[in-house]
Formats: sequence, structure tokens, C-alpha cells
Amino acid sequence: MWTLCPHGKENCHCLSLKLLLLYLSTDNGLQSLQSCPATNPSMLNVHLVPHTHDDVGWLKTVDQYYYGDRNNIQHAGVQYILDSVIDQLQKDPARRFIYVETAFFYRWWRQQSQSTQRIVAQLVNEGRLEFINGGWCMSDEATTHYSAVIDQMTLGLRFLNDTFGECGRPRVAWHIDPFGHAREHASIFAQMGYDGFFFGRLDYQDKARRMKTKEMEMLWRASESLTPPLADLFTGVLPNGYNPPEGFCWDQSCDDAPIRDDPDLEDYNVDEIVQKFLNAAFYKTNHIIMTMGSDFQYENANLWYKNMDKLIKYVNALQAKESKVNVLYSTPSCYPQELNLANLTWPLKTDDFFPYADDAHDFWTGYFTSRPALKLYERLSNSRLQTCNQLEVLGGPKSKSGPFGEGDSDTMSKAMGVAQHHDAVSGTEKQHVAYDYARRLATGWAHCEVLVRNSLAVLSGSEAPRVFCENLNISVCPLTESSHKFSMNVYNPLGRTVSWPVRLPVNGSVYSVTDANGRAVDSQVGNVFISLKCTCYIYDMKSSCLLPLLSVRWFHCLSPHRNINNTSVTFDDTTGLLSSLTNLETDQTIQLTQNFYWYNASAGNNKESRQTSGAYIFRPNSSDPFVINKTAETQIVTVSSTVQEVTQWFSPWVSQVVRLYEGHRELEMEWTVGPVPVADGLGKEVITRLDTDIKSSDYFYTDSNGREVLERRKDYRPTWELKQTEPVAGNYYPINSRAYIKDDKHQLTVVTDRSQGASSIYNGSLEIMLHRRLLYDDFRGVGEPLSEPGEFSDGLVARGRLLLTLSPPDTAADVHKPLAQGMVLQPLLSFQDGTPSANTKLEFSGLQTSLPPAVHLLTLSQWDKDTVLIRLEHQYQAKESKTHSQPVTVNLQKLFSTLEVLGASEMSLGANQWKEDMNRLQWNTEKTSKPLPLSAKDPSPWEVTLNPMEIRTLLLRVRQL
Amino acid sequence: MWTLCPHGKENCHCLSLKLLLLYLSTDNGLQSLQSCPATNPSMLNVHLVPHTHDDVGWLKTVDQYYYGDRNNIQHAGVQYILDSVIDQLQKDPARRFIYVETAFFYRWWRQQSQSTQRIVAQLVNEGRLEFINGGWCMSDEATTHYSAVIDQMTLGLRFLNDTFGECGRPRVAWHIDPFGHAREHASIFAQMGYDGFFFGRLDYQDKARRMKTKEMEMLWRASESLTPPLADLFTGVLPNGYNPPEGFCWDQSCDDAPIRDDPDLEDYNVDEIVQKFLNAAFYKTNHIIMTMGSDFQYENANLWYKNMDKLIKYVNALQAKESKVNVLYSTPSCYPQELNLANLTWPLKTDDFFPYADDAHDFWTGYFTSRPALKLYERLSNSRLQTCNQLEVLGGPKSKSGPFGEGDSDTMSKAMGVAQHHDAVSGTEKQHVAYDYARRLATGWAHCEVLVRNSLAVLSGSEAPRVFCENLNISVCPLTESSHKFSMNVYNPLGRTVSWPVRLPVNGSVYSVTDANGRAVDSQVGNVFISLKCTCYIYDMKSSCLLPLLSVRWFHCLSPHRNINNTSVTFDDTTGLLSSLTNLETDQTIQLTQNFYWYNASAGNNKESRQTSGAYIFRPNSSDPFVINKTAETQIVTVSSTVQEVTQWFSPWVSQVVRLYEGHRELEMEWTVGPVPVADGLGKEVITRLDTDIKSSDYFYTDSNGREVLERRKDYRPTWELKQTEPVAGNYYPINSRAYIKDDKHQLTVVTDRSQGASSIYNGSLEIMLHRRLLYDDFRGVGEPLSEPGEFSDGLVARGRLLLTLSPPDTAADVHKPLAQGMVLQPLLSFQDGTPSANTKLEFSGLQTSLPPAVHLLTLSQWDKDTVLIRLEHQYQAKESKTHSQPVTVNLQKLFSTLEVLGASEMSLGANQWKEDMNRLQWNTEKTSKPLPLSAKDPSPWEVTLNPMEIRTLLLRVRQL
Repeated sequence: MWTLCPHGKENCHCLSLKLLLLYLSTDNGLQSLQSCPATNPSMLNVHLVPHTHDDVGWLKTVDQYYYGDRNNIQHAGVQYILDSVIDQLQKDPARRFIYVETAFFYRWWRQQSQSTQRIVAQLVNEGRLEFINGGWCMSDEATTHYSAVIDQMTLGLRFLNDTFGECGRPRVAWHIDPFGHAREHASIFAQMGYDGFFFGRLDYQDKARRMKTKEMEMLWRASESLTPPLADLFTGVLPNGYNPPEGFCWDQSCDDAPIRDDPDLEDYNVDEIVQKFLNAAFYKTNHIIMTMGSDFQYENANLWYKNMDKLIKYVNALQAKESKVNVLYSTPSCYPQELNLANLTWPLKTDDFFPYADDAHDFWTGYFTSRPALKLYERLSNSRLQTCNQLEVLGGPKSKSGPFGEGDSDTMSKAMGVAQHHDAVSGTEKQHVAYDYARRLATGWAHCEVLVRNSLAVLSGSEAPRVFCENLNISVCPLTESSHKFSMNVYNPLGRTVSWPVRLPVNGSVYSVTDANGRAVDSQVGNVFISLKCTCYIYDMKSSCLLPLLSVRWFHCLSPHRNINNTSVTFDDTTGLLSSLTNLETDQTIQLTQNFYWYNASAGNNKESRQTSGAYIFRPNSSDPFVINKTAETQIVTVSSTVQEVTQWFSPWVSQVVRLYEGHRELEMEWTVGPVPVADGLGKEVITRLDTDIKSSDYFYTDSNGREVLERRKDYRPTWELKQTEPVAGNYYPINSRAYIKDDKHQLTVVTDRSQGASSIYNGSLEIMLHRRLLYDDFRGVGEPLSEPGEFSDGLVARGRLLLTLSPPDTAADVHKPLAQGMVLQPLLSFQDGTPSANTKLEFSGLQTSLPPAVHLLTLSQWDKDTVLIRLEHQYQAKESKTHSQPVTVNLQKLFSTLEVLGASEMSLGANQWKEDMNRLQWNTEKTSKPLPLSAKDPSPWEVTLNPMEIRTLLLRVRQL
Repeated sequence: MWTLCPHGKENCHCLSLKLLLLYLSTDNGLQSLQSCPATNPSMLNVHLVPHTHDDVGWLKTVDQYYYGDRNNIQHAGVQYILDSVIDQLQKDPARRFIYVETAFFYRWWRQQSQSTQRIVAQLVNEGRLEFINGGWCMSDEATTHYSAVIDQMTLGLRFLNDTFGECGRPRVAWHIDPFGHAREHASIFAQMGYDGFFFGRLDYQDKARRMKTKEMEMLWRASESLTPPLADLFTGVLPNGYNPPEGFCWDQSCDDAPIRDDPDLEDYNVDEIVQKFLNAAFYKTNHIIMTMGSDFQYENANLWYKNMDKLIKYVNALQAKESKVNVLYSTPSCYPQELNLANLTWPLKTDDFFPYADDAHDFWTGYFTSRPALKLYERLSNSRLQTCNQLEVLGGPKSKSGPFGEGDSDTMSKAMGVAQHHDAVSGTEKQHVAYDYARRLATGWAHCEVLVRNSLAVLSGSEAPRVFCENLNISVCPLTESSHKFSMNVYNPLGRTVSWPVRLPVNGSVYSVTDANGRAVDSQVGNVFISLKCTCYIYDMKSSCLLPLLSVRWFHCLSPHRNINNTSVTFDDTTGLLSSLTNLETDQTIQLTQNFYWYNASAGNNKESRQTSGAYIFRPNSSDPFVINKTAETQIVTVSSTVQEVTQWFSPWVSQVVRLYEGHRELEMEWTVGPVPVADGLGKEVITRLDTDIKSSDYFYTDSNGREVLERRKDYRPTWELKQTEPVAGNYYPINSRAYIKDDKHQLTVVTDRSQGASSIYNGSLEIMLHRRLLYDDFRGVGEPLSEPGEFSDGLVARGRLLLTLSPPDTAADVHKPLAQGMVLQPLLSFQDGTPSANTKLEFSGLQTSLPPAVHLLTLSQWDKDTVLIRLEHQYQAKESKTHSQPVTVNLQKLFSTLEVLGASEMSLGANQWKEDMNRLQWNTEKTSKPLPLSAKDPSPWEVTLNPMEIRTLLLRVRQL
């Protein structure tokens, strides 16, 4: 089975943490550890960290970056970086290097000869080459969903573990470039066993304050639900972003003077350089970390190492003349070990690092929304990948090689891995690169499609051809449009029943729909669509359209079953806008007006600052957005048994369909925005704003990567006295799944279908940015204005859904939690012509029973031949739900309907370490006044207890039944 | 003593030429030679030649290029290139590299560890690293003097020989970048033992024709005087300049697509690249050379080799599918070996490759004159270096370490070595780099000055302080200006007596000048100058100022001795211009008008072409130059015993002093031009034109690097039918020491003090470009308009001398040859306050007797402790002088007055091979109709016979007497 050290690597030289702790407890604790360089306790130790920052796509595609193609766009070739570094590391055992992005390392490794692979393994074993962070990419923190982040980290970490064993395990998380930092990321890193976390970008005011108060290093308590130190993470802000100190950039891409140490030559400059370096050593403790590298640097590592060798030689030579500076090659995992030895008390951080501003008017809050279509496609792809992973497990070996050919989930895993990059789903890449990410996801899905076809063939016993109708989102499905008789198959990847409306393009006007049991399903044929819902009888009789977890269900049914609506809305007759929202169950009503507006994007021509709005930065020219139309033309499209629809037209480029589904608690608002007109020379950032009578004051709430929710307050930061410079952009926060406002009685929650930017600028109001089209670059490197072309027209048309729920605050989570998970993991529809053959198995469920309401099946994927990785998550925060914020227990043996669980071993969240081997560095911090959550224990080895927000990662040994 | 292979290198793997010839005579001659890669006789063999072209200064200084400093100007760091190439060569024995510029290699070598040096030596021994060309730099061919070229080649070749022995000897000359090619360079390379010569740049019409007629490779017969094959050189024009074929540049500085050979990736392009390469293989024979590299490439050699490895692998893999293309790593010395084996008859080339045009209006004839002050300073520095070298020999060991401290000639040798570079003396470097070259020459002289002081102290027996009055050229010498009694010491570096006028700034009005014997010397005190001449009594009683060869002579004498003038001129009373020139000896007179003009430099705004005049390119806007003034204001400054002077003022920025020296045959014209005014927005290229009644028709004559003279004809090229596009610029040629026009009776020769551009546009006229000041860059990379700043004013003031002689054509050489050598090697003056002490030796001569008139002492320099390098040159061409164009013999044992010659061994011209070991490849060529010169033999081992234009290089073992 899976082992921590690869076979045959008995002489693993790098120290395990346990061994390390033994060292630390001896008297000579300050002595150099075998894998870390010696420091000098009586001097200022400057840890030079040679590193490269290799974007997994940005100005060029990931392929172009790897090969060094299209260097006219940007000079960068990762294959050469790794070639060069490995060469240079061999020249001197003191030299060190860290590598971060496994997506690149993985490619490179595959192309190396065995002898090079042996050399690299040796360098890793000796700690000379160290993997840091280690995910497939360095994920964006604002626009990613935790599910995809955990997956991409697992993908990278697994490769490192499989290849290098324990010596290849990254000890430190390293997000030097992402544009703001999410608390949930810190929580994830802590649960993955990292000893520390370093980053480069934080608000300029925050940084100035931390420099002054010496709070550049801290303990981040990244969850209000998890029992410390489960989500505690030692966190350091790097002194120079992720760049070298000024004047010491010796990469081929830099122009800084090299060290010219031949005294015979005209330009000898050693003394000058050394003096400059000593001036730069300004830190407070006797250790300081210096990032020596930057974007795609070290393609010619010799330039760096040759000059750093000289720097170390000449600076340390001054120790003979009473200098107290000691320079050394080091790594980001050796550095915190030294800090940990100091046994200090570190400041506590409990909020997050959003939004990020690098200057007074330069808030990086635009990318929360940039490229809305890519953001949606990435989210949808995550749903498909989970489906693909699950069906690979459930369908067994034939899934990958079956009647429909060879399929795999790896391609999609990798495509999703790169899509998490901080210039991918963030929307801050060049247009051609955005296309490349989308293409990769499509290719990934094409591979998954084969797997899914194979798996469904196994599970249904039918090898009849099956189509997926990729273009249902634009109402195209040739099969349903041409066939007079077809069947639809729905796979629900959630661990519980869910109701899902289906709308199919058809040509006829009368359809009879029945379910697997031959019962009629309520449906409605409109102009060119058939909308249908169905009743299923397994887990939840209340919902009209039940898609059982991990289940295959055939719908060819139409049922007359009807339910009462739980929610109602009113529209203003004069304006055509929404005017109120009522929860019929709880009998509560709020005034609610909703409209669409656009902020006029700054063109960089106002007097305070030249900053423009661009892919990264949101900077409205005025704090007052322009209303697109004060009134909407409305049309009641359908009032039927399954759905009530009102369409609103605001302008030729903004419209909305408001829907209430039978028996559902949420109001759906399907907005369509675009092509955003820019012929007037004005860039536009389009929002929708909900104005209510909720007394929210300055407070609102946003989720962090789709998990825990943080409180936000207008013009306020919890950790420093904010000097607000951008009254709108400075109050925007990323939302990944939801945002809400509330008062004592009412909570209005908006669940989104993708990551967006949101804020509450006025009491009772909540605004969400939907789309952006801009005319200027914003000077952060991308070099293009964000103006996405459309497929058929000038400018991209974006469409999406917002789900609104109104509840009392203390039960709101009970509604929005399952609603949001249902948005993230969507049912997969597939179609077959005609009716299924007689021996087709029309229903299948992968789980024996629905999971408890608090439990989310986060991961189910094949690990090795006989092992399956499962992640079970408690999806409620502590205290947010009276009903669900309690420990809950799942019995692993009673979980699957088709798999026997033979054994279970718990792992770190990243699945690269046994849970029992996790032994992170411990840090002292300030006392906190908040009561800390307690955690319940497992009642038996087969029963897994989940405390609020807890994720349990288990490797199961299984046998197909 | 000196050996061909360094000590301890018994196992020298590379093949000596003798061994090579043995191989060639066997039947398996096509088999791979040990040091050359295997080729395939039935296929087209594409020789990939990995190379870097490292300018020894251009946009950056040589230091900046070496270290990679100022990369904002140009990315280039030679230290890293060599680091990287050595690393990469070790990865695969098939890989090859050539290195060219020893100035850089030398520096790098000194900084390497012994283990690296051992690795490099091994690579050299195995032929994997090959030195090509091997001079200190790749010299300019238009503006260099052969004396300095031979020196810089010797400097580089000696380092290679001392370091690597025979394996380090370059077999091929490689001038891939110089802007036109001098026949004298080819002659020098042939005499240095090179087997071939490759270059990249030639006239675009010539290239097109040669491509068409398959004459890209030829035999260059580079001397009309030397017996073939002494100056025959196999010469190849490279197919792509010195760049890789389009699309195959894989350097970090290029943007061509890398080979993406992972079929799993999106951008797999192997098939496309391979096909593109096969399309590019257009050559006629079954061998073609492909330069794979360019300016400062291979700083990260991995990029190149990784992709070339793949190219070779994938192209050769197609041989299995009947492809007939065989790609291999090769070198420029392996390639001609293969051609030589073909045993073909090659076209014969007897003229040169000037001028160079890369397009219809783009003649690179401006740099013949660019930076006139630097060109003069370089020439003067050569004279000083020869003096320094001679005095190092004559003064013995104390010269380098004596009463005035540590001195050396090496610094000056190296400064002169880099100054020969094709962007140095050529004037095509950036301004700051031009300053750097001048600074290096000044530093070199400072080191020499100490040596000279020491040597003169040894030779004179007096350690009294001595000053050199560096600023005599601008009439500043504090000692002579302030002292009432001083003595002057003159050192003559020529091998014969020479007359030299001296003009010193003084304060008094009455001076008594006496010579070493106390006899009065004729002198004349003007306003602030004393002009003097002197009589010496050793070799030549006829000349008034005799400076014995290699001799130290004290002048504190004034003599009443007077001679008759040999030359007279008349001035036109109306215009103030010269009107006739008479040789009183031969009783011949020509009409001669001389004036100054400027061509209006093209600003790139005319309709035929956007080409501007710039540092490289001369392109007048009109073929008619503007006259600066139709008349000159004249003043007869002095009519005295020693000199007659007429000053002409043409404008505030153009003036001239015309001088006739007592007893001299030449008319001296000292011109002063500048600051060239450009406030009118017009760039100016200033010429002086001599208009005569000589019936020269379209013919004129220019020297090649100061040696043999070539016939030029207006709007004509000997080797192709010229389509003339630039009636002026297309007729300019470089002159290094002289130009002349002639008819049956008269030859008017102009001897110059530096390299310049010259032409004859009209019958009987000769024009010389003196100075240029331009307002635009000419798009050849330098990126600056050539507009040199002056020290005290806006724009550089240039001053120089032209020496005119009128003779019958058949005796003209008897006059201009010694005149030109006297201009090249000028006496060195030094001064001491007061009179020399009593025991000072006032006269010294290093040679026992004056050399025969035909013999020039080209080189005399210390080689090792007990050895001295000497070069004796026959300075007359075959047939140019009835008197002197004859074999002449010198007895080595009777040469020196202070050295006993114990042994003599003849060497190749580059002094890196024993003459007897020279065994160059032999090439068949077309029959020539011209009678070939025969050579006389040495009468005895101690007697060296020189045939016309022959240079004999001898290593002498000597003992100080």
C-alpha cells in the first residue's frame, strides 16, 4: 500500500519532524540541523532563499511557459529553469533552491533521464532542493472554491510524495504572489500539516503598520470553528514582496550590477555592493529571510549563484573585521525552525487579508469578478470532476477502459489544477491564456466523458450510446431537439437528495414525461423548451425533483404531483422592479428593490491617481454607479405548476428572469449582461444591487473560499485603523458561494454560481459585481484591457444565477448551506435516443443511505487500485445552526452500496501524510478572550465523528461488491 | 624554451595536421577523424556550428560585457557564456562549441578553479571546445593597421598556445561580423597558418551573384607579391550571415519556438520544425555549414543544446524514412576538411571585399572615418607600444622593475588588442565605450611609461626624473613652458634614421639649442613655440634631423646647418587656395587645388530609401558636397630655415596649416576641423578634396591595412557587374596609410596619420573624409547618432596631418613607403629639467647599423626570459620600386648592439607554430594568367632573406651583452 518513503529509499537524509524535535530538545539546539544550514546565534543571520516564481499561465499559456515558447510575449521557459538549477545545485553543497509549482515540476521530471532523476532525488534527500507549497499551482485565494483548492494541493503533494517520499514533503506554504489572502486557505494549509506560511502581498497600510510594530510575523488562527491549533498557522510577511532586495537581482532578466571582483579590472565593485547589502539588513530579530528570485527567474541559475556565492564570501569575510552579519543559503522551512527556537509570543491574526491595496487608490478588487464566464466554467468543471471521480470509484476498473474506450479523470484533475492558479480563475491572464484554460477544462471533460460513459454503462448494464449536450447552457441539444422519444439520465454527485429544475430545448409541443417507475412527471412545454421536474421516492419526499446522491436515475416520467411554494415576491407595477420578498414558511417579509447599475471605470485621468480599472483593479471614477434603467419592462412568462417566471428587460444588454420553483425556498434571479457597450469610451463595471429595509448598518458577511463566513464592516479593518481612500472599491470583498446582510429578524442571503466581488455600501443594501468591460490596462503586468470578445457579437455576454433566501438569522444556514452545495455540485444530465432497453438498470445509488444533513461528501476518488480517498466534511460552522452545528458521526462500513470497506487510515488534509505522523511546530500566541471550540472524539475505529467545519480525510481499502 | 605543447600534455588527443594528412591519404578518408564528427558521404551533411559572437566592446565596454554589467543597455555577460558552455559540453560528447575572442577567454580562464581548467583542457584536447580565429579580438578590417593586427593576433594565439598547446591552435580564421574584408587580413591569416577563413558580410549584389553561381566558397590569393600559396586562403561566405537559419534561434535572446516534443501536450511541434529545417537546407554541395548562434548568445547554453539535440535526433530519425539529410554538431575547422576532401577546383579571388553594402543605398563607408580622434589615438598608441616593447628588450629586466617602479608592456598590448576590435577603432561603438577604449590606451601607456623610464635610465645611466609631456598635441608641456634650461630626449622606434620636426611650447624668446656633441642645432622661436631640427652624425648625413633607429639621443644643440627644399607649392592670390605642387628634384609640376567641403548627411527622409548616415553608413543627401568657403584667408606664419608655414582659414571651424620642412620631400597639410556646426539641423561629413590635372580617369589606389595597395575604379567592382546606387558613398574605400592617383607621368600620393575614407569621384581628384558629425542613428545597432562631444566646446575638434608627395609613378614608392612608416612609428620625446649630469650617456643605438632601406623592423619584443620575438618585413611590393623591390638579406647576428643572438627559430606569422610545422590544406584553383612571383632563399642559417612584402617571424635566443 501507500508508504511515506518510496521504495528503496532507506537512507533518507532529510530529517523527519520527530527527529527534528529530538534535536531541538538537546542542549546544542542551535547547532545546524543536518538538512538546514548552520546559523550564528550571535549575529544577524540573513537567510538567502533562492527561488523562482513560475506562474502556471498568465501572459503565456502553461505550455508556453514550460517550453519557453512565445518569448516575445515574456521571456520564460520553466524547463530550462529546472535544468539550470539542478546543474548549479550540484556545484556546491551549500547552495539551496526551492521549487513550488508541481504542475511544472511534474512535466519536467517525466522528461529526465534516470540518472538525472537519481541526482535530483539525492538533492531532495539532502535538503538542497526543497519543495515548498507543492500544490499543482499556487492557487488564487479570492476566487477559488475550497473543494478545488484541496484537490489541486492533493494532486501536487501526491506527486511529490510518490516520487520523493517524506523528503519531498513541503513543510511550508508559500503564496508569495496572490493578491490578498483568504483565511480559509490558511485553515486548509494548517490542516495539511504545514509548519508555516509566507506571502508577499498585503495592504500597504497594514504592511507599514506591521513593519513599525514588528508584526510581520504572526500566528493566524484561521477558523472560528476548529479547535486550536488545528487551524493555527505561523504566517510571515516577506520583507521585499517576493523579490530580492533592491540592487541584488542577478537574474538574466535583471539589470543590476554583477559583483565584479577582479581587482585588476576597471570596474571592481565588491566593496560598494557589500556595503549596500549591509545597509539593506534592517530587520529586528537576528534572523531575516531574503527572497532571492522572482517571476520565472533562474533560467540561467549560474548568474544568481555565482553572484550570491561572492556576496556570501565577501560579506562574511567582514566578520573578521567585527561585522555582525552572517549570510547563508537557506530555505523557507529552515527559517521558521530558527524562529520557533526563539520561543517568542507571536501576535494573533483572526480575520483575513482582503481586500489588497498596494497604494492609496489601487485596490485589487476587480479580479473578484473579472472573466465571469471563465469563473463559471471553472466552477462547473469542478462539479464535473467530482462526478468523474465518483463514477471512477463506483464503476470500477472498466470506467477507465470500457466499451467507450479509454477515459481518465487525471486530465481533468490537471486542468482544474492549473485553473486554480492565481492568474487563471482569477481572470487576470491574457485573453489567449484564458482561452487555453477553458480549452484544457474542455479537454479534461472530454477524457472524463469517456470514463463517465463507461461507468454508466457498467452501472446501468446498458452500452447504448449517450450524449451529454454540452451546449444546454445556450439551449442547444441536437438530440432533444430532433428526437421524438428520448430518455434522460441524471447523476447527482451530492451526498444527499437535491431538487433540480431541468429545461431542455425541444421541437414539439406535447411531451409525456415519466420517471423510472413509469410514473408521470410534471412538465411544461414552452416556446422551444420543455421544463420538467420529477418526483423520486427514496430519501426526501418533500422535494419535487429528487436526485439521489451518487445515483443514476432515469427520467422518462411526468407526475402531476404539486407542492406549495415556500417563497413569494412582489413587483412594483410602475417600475417593473422587485418590491418585496416573503418567506411563507416563516411568515417574514422584507422590502426588496433590485436593479442593475454600472460604475464608470477610471481611465487613469483623475487628479488623485493615474490608476485605471483593469483586470486586477477596480477603481470607479465616481462612487455613484449609473443606473441602467430606472424601470424594467416585465413579462410574466409562465405561471405553472413547476415554475413561475417573470422576465425583466432593462436595456438591450441587461435582462433578468426571476423564478420561483415549486416547493423551493429560494428565489432565482437569472441575469444576462452583455455585450457591455463601450462605444461611448467608458469602461463599465456592472453590478446588481439589492436594497432592503434590513437594518444591516455597516455590516455584511462574505464566505471564504466557499467555507466559513467572515464579518465585514464598511470602511473598517479589524487589525488596523483604516484610512479609506476608495469608498467603493475599498469595501469590496470576494464571495465564492454566498454573501448576506442581516439584522435581528431578517437575514437575506445571496448564493452565487461562481466567484464574484460584493459589498454593502449602504445600510440594508448588498451589491454584487456581475461583469466588467474595460478600456485600459491597469499596469500590473497583464498588458491588456479586460475586454472579452464574445463568440457571436462584440463583447462577451455573461449569464448567471443568484439565489436569494430570506430567513431568520438563526436558521439561515440551514437553508443556504445545502443550497450553496447544490450550486457547487450540480447533477450531470445525459441523454439517449429512444427508451432504454429492457434489461437496463434504471436506478442506482452509490451510497447506502443519505448522509446526515451536516455532512458533505467532499471527495470520493480512486487512489490506487484497491484504495479510495474519501473526505467527509461537517459543513456547518460552530453555532451557526441550532440543528446542525453539532458533532455528527458517520459509519464508514455502512457508507457504500457497492464497495466493501476493508480498512481506513486517516490522513492529513493533503493526503500526503498519515494523520498520526502529523507533528507541526507549536507556537505561543497572545491569549484570546473568545471561548475555543471543543471537539468530539470518534466512538469507534469505523465511526468518524465530524465537529463543525471539520474535514476528515481517509484512505479506504475497498473491495468491489 | 618555448614548446608547442604545454608541459605534461603528452596525451594530446587532437590531431596535428601532419597526422591528419596521413589519415586523409588512407582509403577510408571519409571516415570520421578523431577530432571531427562523422559525416555521411551519401547524404547532405549539415554542419551545425554552435558559436557566440562576443564583441570586445560595442554598446557596452569590454568589462561590462565580460561581467554582464549594464544589461539595461544590452543583455550580455561573457563570464556566464563560458560557464554555461563548459557545463553543457560535458553533458554529451557529441556537442561542440567554438570560442573566438581570446580577450574574453583569457579573463575567464584566470578566474577558474584548477579542476575547471582541467575539464576545459580535456574538452579542448578532444576537439569538443575549439578555438577559432583566436586573436585577442576579431579585428576591424577597414580601419586597422597590419602592425597592430598582427600584434593582437599574436597576443591571443600565444595565450592559447601557452595554455593548451597544439590542441588550442585555431585552424580557421573567423571574421563573421566585420563590415567588409581587407585583402591584407586574408594575407596575414594565410601567413599565420590558417586553413580557411569564414565571414558573414559582403556586398548584397556580390552575395546574390555568388549564391547563383555557387561561388560562396573560393580561394583568396591575397597578395600580388608573395609566392603562392603563401598568401592563398580558402574563404567561405556563411549562408546566414553569422546567425542561425530563420526560426532556429534557440538562445535566451531569441523568440523562436522551442521544439516541443511531448506528444501529450497541446503544442507539440516537432514535425513542423523538422519540415521547416529540411526546407532550409538549400545548399549545392553535400556539406553545408550552419552558424547556430549570434551576438553574445549561449549565456544559457542549455537552451541551444537541448533544442539542437532534439533537432538532430528528429531530423536524422527521418533517414529511416529515406530522408537524405544528416545533421551533426561540427566546427568551422571540421567543415573545410570535408570540402578539401572533395578535391574540387575553387574560384579565385584577388581583390577585396570593400566597400560593403547590405542594401541598395546602405554603404558601410562612413566608419572608415568615424571618430577621427580615436582613430588617431589608436595609431599613436601603436607607435608607443612598439617603443615600449623595444625598450623592454633593450633595457633588459630592469625595464619592468627598476628605479621608477613596476612597469609593463602587457597592459598596453591588451589595450591595443581590444582597440583593434571591429567596433573599437572602427568608431562604431557608443560614446561611453569610445571613452573606455581611450582610457584603456591611456592606462596602457601609463604602465609603459614606467617601463620606458626604467629602460632609459638603464640605457643612459641616469635616473634623473623625466617627463613625457602627454599634451604636446595641444601645445601644453609645463616643463618646457616654465624651465629656462631643459633637455629633450628622442627615441626613434624605426629601424632607420628619420627626420622629425619638433615644436615645443616655451615662454622665452631666445633659446640656444645644442645636440649631444655640443653643436648648435637650428631652431626658431615663434610666438609661444620653439621649432627645432637637429643634425645627427651616424647614419645619414643628408637629413637634418636624424633620429637613429632604436636610439636614444639627447638634443640640447642648435646647429646653423641648412638644406635645400625638395618640394615647393604655389597659392592662388585670389582664392588663397593651393594652386600647384612641384617636385624640385624631379622637376615635375602639377596643378593642385585643395579645398574643404561637406556632404549633407541623409536624414532618412528621401524617397529611394529611409537610410540615414550614421556611425557605420555614409549616405550623402546629394552627390555634390557644399564648399565650406570658396576662398581661404591666408597668412604666411614663418619663412625660416627649418620650416615654411602658411595658415589658411576657411571658416571658424575649418583651418589648415600648410608646411614645407627643410630638406623634406613631402608637403604637410595640418587640418583642423570642428566643432562641426549642426545647429542648422544638417549632419555634416567633412572632406578635403585635391583637384589636379593628373589624368587619373576613373582609377585611384588605396592601401590595405597599411601594406599592399589595391587599384580602385569608380563605379566598378572587379568580380561582378556593379549596379551602382550611391555615386559617392558607393565609391568610398578605406585608407590606412595612403592613397594615390596617377597617370603616366605623375603620381600624387597622400600619406595619412590615421585610417580614413577616401575616393576619387572626378578625373584627377582625390578626396578624403576627415570628420563626421551626424544627427541620426543609422539602424545598425549602435543606437546613437555619431556626434562626438568636445572637451571644451560643443562638438569634437579633430586635427590631423596629410602628407603629399609628387613623384614619377615608378619611383613614388621610394618616397611614400618610408614616409608612411615614419608616420606610423613616431619618435618618442621625453624631457628633463636642466642639463644631464656628467656621467649620462647621451647617445645609444640598439641596432649595430641601420637596416637596409627595404627592411622594416615590424616587431621587437621580449618573449620569455631569454627569448625575443622579432619580425622583419620587406616593405616594398613586387615591382613597385626599381631600387627596392628586390630580395634583401639581413644578418641576425650583426643586428643588435647590446644583445648577442644565440639561436634563431622561424615561426608562423602568429608565432604560435614553428615554421617547419606549418602544413596548411592545399586547394586547387583556376589557372591565373598573371606571372607568379618567385622567392629567394636564405644564404645561411643566420642570414634571413626577405622577398617583397615578406614578413619573417623569428624567435631569437639572446643574451644581454
